[in-house]
Amino acid sequence: MTTATPATAPLTVQLGTRSYAIEIVDGPVAKPAAHEAYWSRLLGSLDGPDIALVSNTTLMPRYGEPLGDVLRGIARRVVPVAVADGESYKTSAMLDTIHDAMLEARLDRRSVVVALGGGVVGDVAGFAAATYQRGVRFIQLPTTLLAQVDSSVGGKTGINHRLGKNMIGAFHQPSAVVIDLSTLRTLPPREFAAGLAEVIKYGVALDAAFFEWLDAEMPALLARDPIALAHAIRRSCEIKAMIVGSDERESAERALLNFGHTFGHAIEGATGYGTWLHGEAVAAGMVLASRLSEALGTIDGDVTTRLRALLARAGLPVEAPSLDETEWLRWMSGDKKADAGRLRFVVLDALGRSRVATVPDETLSTVLREPHPA
Amino acid sequence: MTTATPATAPLTVQLGTRSYAIEIVDGPVAKPAAHEAYWSRLLGSLDGPDIALVSNTTLMPRYGEPLGDVLRGIARRVVPVAVADGESYKTSAMLDTIHDAMLEARLDRRSVVVALGGGVVGDVAGFAAATYQRGVRFIQLPTTLLAQVDSSVGGKTGINHRLGKNMIGAFHQPSAVVIDLSTLRTLPPREFAAGLAEVIKYGVALDAAFFEWLDAEMPALLARDPIALAHAIRRSCEIKAMIVGSDERESAERALLNFGHTFGHAIEGATGYGTWLHGEAVAAGMVLASRLSEALGTIDGDVTTRLRALLARAGLPVEAPSLDETEWLRWMSGDKKADAGRLRFVVLDALGRSRVATVPDETLSTVLREPHPA
Repeated sequence: MTTATPATAPLTVQLGTRSYAIEIVDGPVAKPAAHEAYWSRLLGSLDGPDIALVSNTTLMPRYGEPLGDVLRGIARRVVPVAVADGESYKTSAMLDTIHDAMLEARLDRRSVVVALGGGVVGDVAGFAAATYQRGVRFIQLPTTLLAQVDSSVGGKTGINHRLGKNMIGAFHQPSAVVIDLSTLRTLPPREFAAGLAEVIKYGVALDAAFFEWLDAEMPALLARDPIALAHAIRRSCEIKAMIVGSDERESAERALLNFGHTFGHAIEGATGYGTWLHGEAVAAGMVLASRLSEALGTIDGDVTTRLRALLARAGLPVEAPSLDETEWLRWMSGDKKADAGRLRFVVLDALGRSRVATVPDETLSTVLREPHPA
Repeated sequence: MTTATPATAPLTVQLGTRSYAIEIVDGPVAKPAAHEAYWSRLLGSLDGPDIALVSNTTLMPRYGEPLGDVLRGIARRVVPVAVADGESYKTSAMLDTIHDAMLEARLDRRSVVVALGGGVVGDVAGFAAATYQRGVRFIQLPTTLLAQVDSSVGGKTGINHRLGKNMIGAFHQPSAVVIDLSTLRTLPPREFAAGLAEVIKYGVALDAAFFEWLDAEMPALLARDPIALAHAIRRSCEIKAMIVGSDERESAERALLNFGHTFGHAIEGATGYGTWLHGEAVAAGMVLASRLSEALGTIDGDVTTRLRALLARAGLPVEAPSLDETEWLRWMSGDKKADAGRLRFVVLDALGRSRVATVPDETLSTVLREPHPA
């Protein structure tokens, strides 16, 4: 039995005048024609006469076109913008594509950008909204588990640059986030697992009770049971909102959300971006971060054992690729959280409790030299 | 005799946690070596280890290089970025040039962008700062009168798009604005006059006493007397700050700053951007806006007569080019302040008092059909 909140209770992200609701629902994105009243209410509350509906070439025919047909009955105009599918296209060229389409349609500053897709579409369409006529509103419709639990909260938008990921961007809060659980039914297993890595991260680094719940309900999650999914997504967003709410721009507390990410970014970079999915790299990175905590003496081996087991059940890799220590260090120091040249890590003080620590070089070496102990 | 505030009293723009000072000074930008203590104090207060010093190819050798030499003794690193000189270069390519240089130098998010130049450099470097790693701090060193009285307050940054001016951008407040009066000594007369148009705008639309002061002190201003200039710039920034402070994003009150601009934008567009300087078009536009107010019966002809005379003494055009009424309407409806297709104008209720009004078509026609009455 799950302890899930009903899928219809919205979660409010508290940000003063920029507060917004995350609605976890079942159907409006995947079957828009059956949910016209839902869209009427949502768009009515925004009073945005025109809509730029941004999606990728895979999702536009599947979800975008039917949704556009419904929105056309509600808004004055719906301008569809299809962009390429894939992280490698998250560039200024994609940003230009969206801006060009909006300007060619002469959309004014009361328009609303609707971002339908995974992290790439959300990040770029959000950045396009942040910078169109110095900022228009946008609605996120995340369709991957990773985007639902990670990008829905925090207001980070942006594009990659040849010299680094997410180097150009802005903080821009959405007006609403609509998470439709039914879009997860067709998500490929590997991408679904990559999303679960971030869900598990919220448990292991920030909420022991949530970790226990995930441990008990992993079979229901893997079966994509909507009630279990609704709770996992809601609790993940709640934890992130709690941390981000008091600290919209990156600093102290927000860093805890990067548990496993310093190692993870190195894995992604060293193996060539795209070889490991971000969530996969974070999974293996969390195991290393847990082992680093052990080496610091703040937790015992039990925590790492339980984390590894849960990640493995979720279908995630738990062993990092073999890299030289110098290679690890090179990729980790490229991480933009590096503070004046010193490496900082999020470490565990207990299951569900973490903090940022500067780690002695010898301790780090111990872990990096033997990434896969027996 | 002038009633100028001493050039050294800073003006604070009140924006809560993003408040900043506008310092009106004489020397630090034009003769930086003699003002090392000034720069030490200013940069010390920011604690930004690295600086991107952005200027154009004309000003970099004149002011940028000597300033860079002084800043290098204070900051950890100074990365100079020279961009092309001219409004036609205010594009995404210029934005990329700045971002590329910052990323190649691996500047981190504690860096500070210093924008040295007129409106183009300020707008693009400010936008680069707004979007570099989701926002770094920036300092404005405006070197034209127009940039000093217009861009110093309001936080508007951005670039042009082939389909419209300033269409892509962000609101991003500077950490400080340093207005060095000595940079005005070498400003070409035509550009100086264009800046005076905006100064006169603050008087005629928002402050009758300031208009009277300008009327009395125009000879001192034209002689570029530093004390008169300091007061004119300070009062202009004060008026703008008063209006923008309560309304950081564009809406009701902020629109009053656009007195003369709807007509002005049409003049700039219809004659081809760059033919008329922005300030010149605003000057002729203000005369039309004043005549429109007369036609509405809210002011008598006296106000227009005084405004025309003051603009003419400042060396500004007071007669719009001959355009068909249809051409006027086409260019005015492209103005991004158009509200749902209806044209709104800032009109005068008296010298120094203005409001936004929707104007009957016949009244507008009367003015447009006879732009130059005897």
